[in-house]
Amino acid sequence: MSKIRSIVSVIILAGSATAVSALDVLPKKAPAPADNPTTAAKVELGRILFHDPRLSSTGTVSCASCHNTMLGGEDNRPNSMGVNGQTGGRSAPTVWNAAFNAVQFWDGRAASLEEQAAGPVTNPIEMGMKSWDDVVARLQSIKGYQKLFTRAFGVNSISKDTATKAIAAYERTLITPNSPYDKYAKGNKYALTDQQQRGLKKAIEIGCVNCHSGPAFNGAGTFRKFPLIDNAYLEKQYSLSDDKGLFEVTGKSGDENYFKVPTLRNVALTAPYFHNGSVATLEKAVKVMATVQLGIDLSDEDTADIVAFLNALTGKFPKQKMPTLPGTPGTTFN
Amino acid sequence: MSKIRSIVSVIILAGSATAVSALDVLPKKAPAPADNPTTAAKVELGRILFHDPRLSSTGTVSCASCHNTMLGGEDNRPNSMGVNGQTGGRSAPTVWNAAFNAVQFWDGRAASLEEQAAGPVTNPIEMGMKSWDDVVARLQSIKGYQKLFTRAFGVNSISKDTATKAIAAYERTLITPNSPYDKYAKGNKYALTDQQQRGLKKAIEIGCVNCHSGPAFNGAGTFRKFPLIDNAYLEKQYSLSDDKGLFEVTGKSGDENYFKVPTLRNVALTAPYFHNGSVATLEKAVKVMATVQLGIDLSDEDTADIVAFLNALTGKFPKQKMPTLPGTPGTTFN
Repeated sequence: MSKIRSIVSVIILAGSATAVSALDVLPKKAPAPADNPTTAAKVELGRILFHDPRLSSTGTVSCASCHNTMLGGEDNRPNSMGVNGQTGGRSAPTVWNAAFNAVQFWDGRAASLEEQAAGPVTNPIEMGMKSWDDVVARLQSIKGYQKLFTRAFGVNSISKDTATKAIAAYERTLITPNSPYDKYAKGNKYALTDQQQRGLKKAIEIGCVNCHSGPAFNGAGTFRKFPLIDNAYLEKQYSLSDDKGLFEVTGKSGDENYFKVPTLRNVALTAPYFHNGSVATLEKAVKVMATVQLGIDLSDEDTADIVAFLNALTGKFPKQKMPTLPGTPGTTFN
Repeated sequence: MSKIRSIVSVIILAGSATAVSALDVLPKKAPAPADNPTTAAKVELGRILFHDPRLSSTGTVSCASCHNTMLGGEDNRPNSMGVNGQTGGRSAPTVWNAAFNAVQFWDGRAASLEEQAAGPVTNPIEMGMKSWDDVVARLQSIKGYQKLFTRAFGVNSISKDTATKAIAAYERTLITPNSPYDKYAKGNKYALTDQQQRGLKKAIEIGCVNCHSGPAFNGAGTFRKFPLIDNAYLEKQYSLSDDKGLFEVTGKSGDENYFKVPTLRNVALTAPYFHNGSVATLEKAVKVMATVQLGIDLSDEDTADIVAFLNALTGKFPKQKMPTLPGTPGTTFN
């Protein structure tokens, strides 16, 4: 937790002095950690694991069920539906460009994609597996997985470590470059409409990008208090303060209601909004954010301009091949 | 229902005189009905609709959730899990090669893929939409779907009729040719192992293919009583007689426990077995079938041979591209 604390401290100290570069282009490749260099074999295995519902107790929920790679990388629900119809309290963040988050989960409790990937599989209301030992036993019983793991990591390599590394390697390929904004940032002044350009200017002017900074507009791993400015009406209407965020991980006073700054990339495709998915539309989300984070009562016109700009952050989704999952001839887990 | 009755009657009358051609190769194309010729635009739209969880009330269940196109075309569960974790009493049949079924559903209550596609969407325990009017309203509100339907069916064409036609057109492309059996049937005597050849011979000899006849080994729309031969022990152990099958549709005495003959294509990938998914392994399924349908107590060796042959019915799954579902920028249904 000391790492998270120190990140938070730096940001709090840095405050509004944080450098803002609103015209960063999204990289086409995500950096990989030294102990998990990206390889084609890992990506292929990860793509298959990510879409395999047999990583859940019921055989009905894959990573992609809540982080839909055919859509905006999540499920467009306030909260996700895991095994047996259970739901949790938070809204699934998008997997697209998650490789550019310095920490994962709304409360930042995972320091890497690898660490994140391990969580939902054994969460009782998400994928519901009893243990990673059980997951590994399942994978080991599938000949096709034996081959895929051998190709990616060597013989007899099926483990929690390798499975999560493969999933993370695949996720590092889920990048959506070439949004209208990126084309604009690279110099094509016609890539954004006049309204989108006004929205971009306004977003910089009022301070949206102080927190949503950098090429992924995610503050590169920063945490911020949300809501920052007391507003009893909005807090009640959207239950904004019920979830204590980082505090629920650290238990330290001062961490209450701190959340990771989420990316704004493809934000138009990830309604409903906020950690609890309580706000249905992007327009409303922009207004609420302006009020409770920046103390600004945004006009309808400015809101529409910012929403238009945010729509320009929808990137090009790479064409993907549909994986064929290795079968279990003659038998099943269920 | 008169159509179903007449099909059943013909089969019952024909009895064991039904011509068996066990060496039919699976066609690479499925015939389309006159009012729904297959076109690339329909197939593309159908592929997208088939994988869109927004066709369910919760936004969590697509056609592919239970008919997994990344696996054996179903979910490897005894019964499928629909919206809010609900389950029904029957096992999802495979969508692969469903185009070669003369009727759809275990009780054959749908006369076409088009008719079948309409069912689960508004079934309260499957996809849970209140009505097709609600489905159409959702689709109409998505600009991307407006374009896709226009391309496939002309302007302002979104309807239950066109949506189910597109899904059916896509399903007609889900064919798995070139199994080892097909290669053998085409003359490559080395495509089947000795054991598989023994299994094929045995399956013909004891009468498996009297019902599981034709290139899809599905009896081309025939219904058969299951279980046919009284066996209190097995009926109780696997609840074989609880579901009355065709009778639950027609209400006519004589239809009790009649079911559509399911395809044996890719049967190795579709455990657990039977209409209620009560038997976990293919080996056990073969033994039970021999006992209650043919009155044969199959030896372990013959069972293993037949299972080996059935594994030779696993075909080549066509490479598919992952669809990108049209988004709903700035908002959501959920």
